[in-house]
Amino acid sequence: MSGWKLVYTAFDPQQEALREALCTVGNGYFATRGAAPESTANEVHYPGTYISGCYNRLQTDIAGKTIENEDLVNAPNWLSLTFRIEEGEWFDLRSVEILSYHQELDIKQAIMKRTLRIRDDEARETRIEQRRLVSIEQPHLAALETIIEAENWRGVIEVSSALDGRVTNDGVERYSSLNGKHLVPLLTESIDNHTLVLQVETSQSHVHIAEAATTRFWRGDELIEVTPELEQDEDYIAHHYRLDMEPKHPVQIEKIVALFTSRDNAISESGLEARKAVTDAGRFVALAARHMLAWKLLWQRFDFDIEHADPEAEEHTELILRLHILHLLQTISPHVMDLDVGVPARGLHGEAYRGHIFWDELFIFPILNLRMPEITRALLRYRYRRLGEARRAARAAGHRGAMYPWQSGSDGREESQRLHLNPRSGNWLPDNSRLQRHINAAIVYNIWQYYEVTRDLEFLSFYGAEMILEIARFWASITTWNDTRERYEILNVMGPDEYHDAYPDAGQSGLNNNAYTNVMVVWVLQRACELREVLPSQRFDELSQLLDLSRDELTHWDEISRNMCIPFHDDDIISQFEGYESLEEFDWQGYQHKYGDIHRLDRILESENKTPNRFKVSKQADVVMLFYLFSAEELSDLFARLGYAFQHDTIPRNVDYYMRRTSHGSTLSRVVHSWVLARGNRPESWPLFMQALESDVTDVQGGTTPEGIHTGAMAGTVDLIQRCFTGIETRGDVLWLNPSLPEELKSLTLNIRYRQHVLDLHVTTTCVRVSTHPSAELPMQIGIKAETYQLKPGEMREFQL
Amino acid sequence: MSGWKLVYTAFDPQQEALREALCTVGNGYFATRGAAPESTANEVHYPGTYISGCYNRLQTDIAGKTIENEDLVNAPNWLSLTFRIEEGEWFDLRSVEILSYHQELDIKQAIMKRTLRIRDDEARETRIEQRRLVSIEQPHLAALETIIEAENWRGVIEVSSALDGRVTNDGVERYSSLNGKHLVPLLTESIDNHTLVLQVETSQSHVHIAEAATTRFWRGDELIEVTPELEQDEDYIAHHYRLDMEPKHPVQIEKIVALFTSRDNAISESGLEARKAVTDAGRFVALAARHMLAWKLLWQRFDFDIEHADPEAEEHTELILRLHILHLLQTISPHVMDLDVGVPARGLHGEAYRGHIFWDELFIFPILNLRMPEITRALLRYRYRRLGEARRAARAAGHRGAMYPWQSGSDGREESQRLHLNPRSGNWLPDNSRLQRHINAAIVYNIWQYYEVTRDLEFLSFYGAEMILEIARFWASITTWNDTRERYEILNVMGPDEYHDAYPDAGQSGLNNNAYTNVMVVWVLQRACELREVLPSQRFDELSQLLDLSRDELTHWDEISRNMCIPFHDDDIISQFEGYESLEEFDWQGYQHKYGDIHRLDRILESENKTPNRFKVSKQADVVMLFYLFSAEELSDLFARLGYAFQHDTIPRNVDYYMRRTSHGSTLSRVVHSWVLARGNRPESWPLFMQALESDVTDVQGGTTPEGIHTGAMAGTVDLIQRCFTGIETRGDVLWLNPSLPEELKSLTLNIRYRQHVLDLHVTTTCVRVSTHPSAELPMQIGIKAETYQLKPGEMREFQL
Repeated sequence: MSGWKLVYTAFDPQQEALREALCTVGNGYFATRGAAPESTANEVHYPGTYISGCYNRLQTDIAGKTIENEDLVNAPNWLSLTFRIEEGEWFDLRSVEILSYHQELDIKQAIMKRTLRIRDDEARETRIEQRRLVSIEQPHLAALETIIEAENWRGVIEVSSALDGRVTNDGVERYSSLNGKHLVPLLTESIDNHTLVLQVETSQSHVHIAEAATTRFWRGDELIEVTPELEQDEDYIAHHYRLDMEPKHPVQIEKIVALFTSRDNAISESGLEARKAVTDAGRFVALAARHMLAWKLLWQRFDFDIEHADPEAEEHTELILRLHILHLLQTISPHVMDLDVGVPARGLHGEAYRGHIFWDELFIFPILNLRMPEITRALLRYRYRRLGEARRAARAAGHRGAMYPWQSGSDGREESQRLHLNPRSGNWLPDNSRLQRHINAAIVYNIWQYYEVTRDLEFLSFYGAEMILEIARFWASITTWNDTRERYEILNVMGPDEYHDAYPDAGQSGLNNNAYTNVMVVWVLQRACELREVLPSQRFDELSQLLDLSRDELTHWDEISRNMCIPFHDDDIISQFEGYESLEEFDWQGYQHKYGDIHRLDRILESENKTPNRFKVSKQADVVMLFYLFSAEELSDLFARLGYAFQHDTIPRNVDYYMRRTSHGSTLSRVVHSWVLARGNRPESWPLFMQALESDVTDVQGGTTPEGIHTGAMAGTVDLIQRCFTGIETRGDVLWLNPSLPEELKSLTLNIRYRQHVLDLHVTTTCVRVSTHPSAELPMQIGIKAETYQLKPGEMREFQL
Repeated sequence: MSGWKLVYTAFDPQQEALREALCTVGNGYFATRGAAPESTANEVHYPGTYISGCYNRLQTDIAGKTIENEDLVNAPNWLSLTFRIEEGEWFDLRSVEILSYHQELDIKQAIMKRTLRIRDDEARETRIEQRRLVSIEQPHLAALETIIEAENWRGVIEVSSALDGRVTNDGVERYSSLNGKHLVPLLTESIDNHTLVLQVETSQSHVHIAEAATTRFWRGDELIEVTPELEQDEDYIAHHYRLDMEPKHPVQIEKIVALFTSRDNAISESGLEARKAVTDAGRFVALAARHMLAWKLLWQRFDFDIEHADPEAEEHTELILRLHILHLLQTISPHVMDLDVGVPARGLHGEAYRGHIFWDELFIFPILNLRMPEITRALLRYRYRRLGEARRAARAAGHRGAMYPWQSGSDGREESQRLHLNPRSGNWLPDNSRLQRHINAAIVYNIWQYYEVTRDLEFLSFYGAEMILEIARFWASITTWNDTRERYEILNVMGPDEYHDAYPDAGQSGLNNNAYTNVMVVWVLQRACELREVLPSQRFDELSQLLDLSRDELTHWDEISRNMCIPFHDDDIISQFEGYESLEEFDWQGYQHKYGDIHRLDRILESENKTPNRFKVSKQADVVMLFYLFSAEELSDLFARLGYAFQHDTIPRNVDYYMRRTSHGSTLSRVVHSWVLARGNRPESWPLFMQALESDVTDVQGGTTPEGIHTGAMAGTVDLIQRCFTGIETRGDVLWLNPSLPEELKSLTLNIRYRQHVLDLHVTTTCVRVSTHPSAELPMQIGIKAETYQLKPGEMREFQL
């Protein structure tokens, strides 16, 4: 229970962008984002605020081709607050002497704190203290408290407090040729001596964004009334206040802002709401108290406790895991339950991927399912709302059912780029990533996992089942029968490994019989057929009519699920795709020697005019994903169904084979590999876990974290603690436990929810203790080592391992 | 299974407004509304479309006071389609001879049909046939099919098909001094020979509304390409097509429209979406087929079957009940599950009350709970989203907790008028209706009923409980202790009976100890205290911390719930409020004789310079509501808890007392009275049921139906069938049945949902048969005559009555 604060004690402009990304505070409604080093250095503020669910389409011409894509836009900057002494230069960290510096992200409170002392050219020493929060309790409010103390001087300071609508999307270097300006000014207004209003709209989607801010000056409980000068432009408005400062009489500046958009529910007009909210907001300390209380309750649901052999390692591990949970809950807080938002791969903390949604949910939902599944439900409804667009995509491609896109945004259409930039070579290259149809299996997997944990039949009936059936129909429609081998096949797709998008020298993109995809499809079709038993018959009948689903079609799905092709080579090595075995082996040592960091092998090879398509190299887990998503029992059943052998050592042999051929070019890869090694090869698993853990805090990919944290990898590391080390599986009506702690850990304590139960779990190397809260109505089933036990509400049981 | 079509076989301009209100088709997303007689007469179209959730605030100066209120706005009219022959007059029913006329609302299909034959001055005979629908399957689409046949002439017709943004809110005469113009034009565009686009925004709330329409001409399967002339204004756009007509070669005009607003989920920009949707829409017949299928499935959930001694009466009764269900499902269709909308008292079928939300949910949710409770859940979340505003209202009034407003709209603030017009006297009078705090008890009642039927603990935990606790806190804070009588009291409120808003000659508004309110508050406080046992302890702890709720506060609530004052007079007649007994008796016969229809006694008395406050007169059920909402057992327990006597004959004596003093000035009143008499006085109950049933179809209030149907009364009549005649109560974990058919009925068949069960019920005068669908997991409890029985999934049981 030790690691709660991410602290930096020196101002380091080189590291500032990374720090800002990591120390961001938000609440799932709006998040303050990282800043470019320059802007942080010379202002007290941080530019920009992302708004979830507020997208803007952009069009740009690159290499003669029009790229149409979407940006998650930056909202007007509300944090803009700075000062100067006696008409001097505005505060700039680069032009003063820094006497002390302490920056701290208090993870427990979700408050960013900074304390610094500076000395300027005229030897004036000033202390500055800041606390910043975006309220998790009142999701439309954020606040910045700034204390300025003249330590050895007296004089007049001028404080500028602004709302700034001139912000652009410019946080990712390689997007700089795209249009980053998305806000059209509507109104700026000074309401009174402390209140400003700024309203803008997004240029393409016409979402209105309104901000109202109050700035007040206090000395203790005494409000200092200052009449400001107004600086007003159509997209910028500031109050300039002049205050007399005396030594040891610090002034406290409280800036509170309310943000509403025209997409908010229960509003009349966003500008009216922002004014009302900021007027009612009260003082910083009261706002902070309620914010901290709400976080305290969230931590009660999401925290865990590990006991590590080395206390320092324990503190460090817990700190980073909690940082991950903080980021996750800021990206998808309980407030998303009422918003039409998905899970952006990079959170709301940076502009990379422009806020797009990929398959990262697959790594994120398991955490939520066992802690606050209501959030998963909301995020799955985001998918459901886009079912129509997925149907349209399938139709346009000549398929049936629903084909969800690999990358998507506001309206759910395919947003994957058709070209991408290799910053190493400067070349724009064709991008086939949209061929990753496997996202359609991940969505079904996510629905089913949510259902297994919650037994939420209402969700399954009204939303989940329709998606499952339409996705199953899509898979069946792109599956073809191969008369020669008497197997069903899926041709021209991509697996998760993005290094392989075509056969070497092939005229077309796509690969045949990607093993991961084919196995997932078998599983999806089984679930689709199972719905006939699981759903209330009334609802299954309705869906059959609405979808024009016949018994024959279900029979066909069942047929495919028994005769799908899975390619093998070298005995029982599952081929990543058909033909993988004839690719060249890659010279790992040679390239490592030549380039050092080779995790983005694709860029290196392209700059040498080669392509990873030639080689047995993977960017990330592909075949290995199967051992991550399914237990050995499930896979063994599935392979038996298909008539393929599945040996005792199939898993370790395959893991070992692909481990040696993976560059971990995705932050997800180490999570998956650590997971699949956790039982069979604990010594190799832990270091991979630690590397995955450090992905963002040390920016392992060298620059990608400031462009946005990696939500999938962050969640994946927490899930290693939550499900992998405890061996939690939810299958049938049983919560299975199969704990296996890494050698480094002595114990693990966490609480989870399963259906209507709240359970406390305590795992040591020798035993597992489970107790349930007494308020549930019915007993529950837990399973340990193939035995199941009934646990009554309020009961505690201990099992030896 | 007979009554399915509402048919009119003569064109009657006098009745047109009423007919249009009744024959409206919509889907809960947008509904086409009734038209003023003039406009229907001279065009083939019907003006206007309401959009749910799209409000606009209006301000007007009346009698020197500013009235700020909200309007549910009319969307641009998409139905505008008319024609003329050879440059003659545009089609006008008043200037032609009508040879035949048949208008039919097909309730089963939710399609409006009209067939007419006309002869003009030049003896040209023309047949016109129309079908109109708003798709329940694709909620953004609507369609109008028009067939025109030249029977005895040949020549050129000019067809005009428009999108018209010039619509105003002008459907209610007495609102005519308010500003009815709410749309600001943004764009009109002709995309190609058959596609038009119109975009507008609401003037205050800045909601964008986009419509795209295609108009195509067919002869059978042959598309007729016609190049139109364009008529374009900033708020109106039309295509004018010229076609050659020959006898016996009818032309079929298909107009399909897509409507999106900026508040829709899963969109990029509303204009883009509307274009995309209308492009994909296909032909009328396919759209209609899917619309009818979706309605078929809805009817499977919502229909019922009664057997009446008189087959004609059976058909008529079923027809009207189904019309009511149709209107209900159009106002709050399954599509509201994804919209932030409430239940407007007048549906989406007219402008009265401007789309405001009152307490009508109380009469509507019971239908939904037992058929499709997911809709109730969505509508209760509408209330939850406005909890912040209710807290603000309580705070502003000096109270604690949450005080929901009597009338509300977009942002949940109080929208009750402060003045209202008496059309009889022309006077604007002060309006105290906002003192109807009892709506706060109705909301708790609704949450609890939903929970009892569904056992949806997730909803209760995340949304319901917080509302219940905050409303309980509000009630406790406006409750005062009377030292003399040693009872708690609630002063200065109004009960449901709107004829009484103050004591005669009192300087202030409000009444003391309204019995209905006080009893409801006792019940609410009991439920709030019960939450400690019902909620998972984890969640109750969280809520206690978030709401700063102490054990002492709960104890205080419990204390109030045992010592609330209820006023009585004349032995055990429950006084409607304290001091009711000393009011004057009213001269019912005299006034009936003088005025005939006296259901709006308030207006009559005011025009005589009197006030109903002086008299023992009620507009509607007030005390009697208690017997509607609670069973005798529940009330008996509740009175015992308070230490008041509750005799065997308390209910009939009170019902009788107030029956004789009620004018039924609200359409809800007869529903309630029929209900409470259904057991004790069946002969009087049935006529009241029939009168309630006719409320809208015969416009009993003389003109209010064209201003909007009465959703509460419509639902209430269906609920008389569903819960009153079957005696369904959901208490504890038991579904209680206590059937008592009216003498006129021989049997009643319906299917309902209870928790995870689907049940078929068949009730006759002598027995009740219950069977459950086999797909549920657990057995359920049913209760008949104080005995409970377990019913296994798939089981059928019959009980003698």
